[in-house]
Amino acid sequence: MKAVGLVVEYNPFHNGHLYHLQASKEKSEADTVIAVMSGHFLQRGEPALVSKWSRTKMALQQGADLVVELPYAFATQKAEIFSDGAISILEALKCHSVCFGSENGEITPFLETAKTLAERDSDYQDAIKYYMKQGISYPSAQTKAYQSLDTGGHTLDLSMPNNILGYQYVKAIQKQGSAISPLTIKRTSAGYHDEEFNETPIASATSIRKAIFSEENKDIQSFVPETTWDNLKKYNDDFDTFHQWEDYFGFLKYTICTMTHGELKQIYEVEEGLENRVKSLIHQAASFKDFMEQLKTKRYTWTRLQRLCLHILTRTTKDQMKLNETGSPYLRLLGMSSQGRAYLNSIKKTVDRPIVSTLSAFSHPLLDLDIKAASVYAMVFPEPIRSQFMHSEYSTRPIQYNEAENLFL
Amino acid sequence: MKAVGLVVEYNPFHNGHLYHLQASKEKSEADTVIAVMSGHFLQRGEPALVSKWSRTKMALQQGADLVVELPYAFATQKAEIFSDGAISILEALKCHSVCFGSENGEITPFLETAKTLAERDSDYQDAIKYYMKQGISYPSAQTKAYQSLDTGGHTLDLSMPNNILGYQYVKAIQKQGSAISPLTIKRTSAGYHDEEFNETPIASATSIRKAIFSEENKDIQSFVPETTWDNLKKYNDDFDTFHQWEDYFGFLKYTICTMTHGELKQIYEVEEGLENRVKSLIHQAASFKDFMEQLKTKRYTWTRLQRLCLHILTRTTKDQMKLNETGSPYLRLLGMSSQGRAYLNSIKKTVDRPIVSTLSAFSHPLLDLDIKAASVYAMVFPEPIRSQFMHSEYSTRPIQYNEAENLFL
Repeated sequence: MKAVGLVVEYNPFHNGHLYHLQASKEKSEADTVIAVMSGHFLQRGEPALVSKWSRTKMALQQGADLVVELPYAFATQKAEIFSDGAISILEALKCHSVCFGSENGEITPFLETAKTLAERDSDYQDAIKYYMKQGISYPSAQTKAYQSLDTGGHTLDLSMPNNILGYQYVKAIQKQGSAISPLTIKRTSAGYHDEEFNETPIASATSIRKAIFSEENKDIQSFVPETTWDNLKKYNDDFDTFHQWEDYFGFLKYTICTMTHGELKQIYEVEEGLENRVKSLIHQAASFKDFMEQLKTKRYTWTRLQRLCLHILTRTTKDQMKLNETGSPYLRLLGMSSQGRAYLNSIKKTVDRPIVSTLSAFSHPLLDLDIKAASVYAMVFPEPIRSQFMHSEYSTRPIQYNEAENLFL
Repeated sequence: MKAVGLVVEYNPFHNGHLYHLQASKEKSEADTVIAVMSGHFLQRGEPALVSKWSRTKMALQQGADLVVELPYAFATQKAEIFSDGAISILEALKCHSVCFGSENGEITPFLETAKTLAERDSDYQDAIKYYMKQGISYPSAQTKAYQSLDTGGHTLDLSMPNNILGYQYVKAIQKQGSAISPLTIKRTSAGYHDEEFNETPIASATSIRKAIFSEENKDIQSFVPETTWDNLKKYNDDFDTFHQWEDYFGFLKYTICTMTHGELKQIYEVEEGLENRVKSLIHQAASFKDFMEQLKTKRYTWTRLQRLCLHILTRTTKDQMKLNETGSPYLRLLGMSSQGRAYLNSIKKTVDRPIVSTLSAFSHPLLDLDIKAASVYAMVFPEPIRSQFMHSEYSTRPIQYNEAENLFL
């Protein structure tokens, strides 16, 4: 058996994701698709539209065979740590390849860039520091630093989010000495951040979410598989909400108001006196958007600040975010198809870290963060749904999917 | 000029309070009434029905001349610390007497009890420990210990909340070497905890609050002065709420879920492994009442546990609750009548601690707790009211009341 790994958020699963999944399977000649998927909170420091369980169903129904959670400790991080965590999981699950979308669909620039930057790491880091001193954000400094190096002809546009992730996957593979082959396919849709629909049936997740939250109630059905639509509808029927930052703003404000400067300083990503800025701006902020707009400076990207807010919301301290070189210490199964189960059985004995099906069977400080994240994610529900949702984090077993009959067992 | 001090919560100000105020003024032959009033959170560990500003107005309109805030650090404590704080403020404001309600209206039993218990403190403390070991609550152990002493004929029923407070006022006066004369008047209404209305126009604050929150919408107008009714109505018009614990339950649950056992242990009043109990019971609790009922044991009174929940809600740590022998380190003015202003001017120069009119002029760790309490109290409002309310904690100057014309200036 041969597995291809995908690193995903599926927020929500749309036609572009389906294309990516199918093209990856074809290109890799794999018979099994493993998706490492972020949990309830995502890389941009925001809550997922619907829970990880609902998104797991979307993935299984459209061809993923195994869905494994990318722990909070990696999922809500900058590209480098995010990628390290994801690759460590795919490596532990014996993936033959990992396949990501990129602007050009060619793998060579990624390999060469990773090689060059590894060789010239100290020049690169110096250049990043140089640009950071000019008061710009870390990602912008990275881009400029990269451009400033003489990269011998090949160039990768590192200002594109997908290219950054792809580069980081390749780098993580090299760093971890992994045997995974990196593959890439050309993205067919518009850019990652596109907020408007275009003529193709592929639209970005951002534009789909925007449509869901817009009052005009634009039709998103043509941009997502029917199964996604059904899952979204069911989630909204069951929980009467799609999650967004604004719903959590009261809890964020409450936390910032009740924590001292010293306590805030212990929160992960609170650096360089940001606790003072956060404290002084919160009282007068009447919404999350309002707060973020006031918090924003040239120095920090929106995403960086949103992640900082998320870590405050979940009270994740620097002490709790203890990561090490080996990536994710566990593999938490969210769901599997029959094919996925067969694959898992075939490799199980050689997997070097615990496979977690139920929370009662395993404990780890990083898993505590996932549990905490699930509690926080549930806070926007009324009781008793909130209690039930929190309990389900413990009681839900990995979702079993029979792909032949499109049946959840 | 001569002032009598009252220690109050006015939650809300009712006919019984009016009787107490007038009788105290008469008995003490004072021309000025100083009310030390709890802020947004009360001794039983719960939010006040309406804000301290609204309750200050009620007090001024019915004869209080000076309303001074009893800081959170004292207001939300057991009788002993509560009384220490209140007496320290009345002493600092040169009160000639303090007058409290009691079951019998005689001061001698209080004086003698305080004297006896001071003399026989070690017997008393040993007896308390003895009874505590039998697994009963601290207040019950106090009562039993007191009964077990041979008190030479005079007896005070220390199971009655008003008697406990009266005893503690007298004890605090003796301890602080204060020149204040303790006075008492006989309560005319039914018991402190009575929840049902009786035939007299005096009803307990508990029964009035119960009526306000009941769906039957019982008439409370005959039990409160018209000014109280008007202030309650205005508060509800302005803020669309009367505050109760259930409204804060989401924040409590959120805090308990996001704090580690270690962090919970640092919270004031979290002792003897209570953090484990709190942590393990919160997930399945669908309401504050539900949570409290599960948390309750013979060992702890409802009030003690409610205060514990309050300190978790406000994230008040043991470190932050640093009290010393001299009681309140500041005197925060909430409101004054013309008479109150004249009295204040007459004593101002001899007052031994800062008189705080605006928050910008003074800072102190205990005052930070009051500010935090105000932020938390505001959490149940929607935006932008929440922001405005939080801002008003800084911007509101003491309320000036012209009693001759019943006008707020």
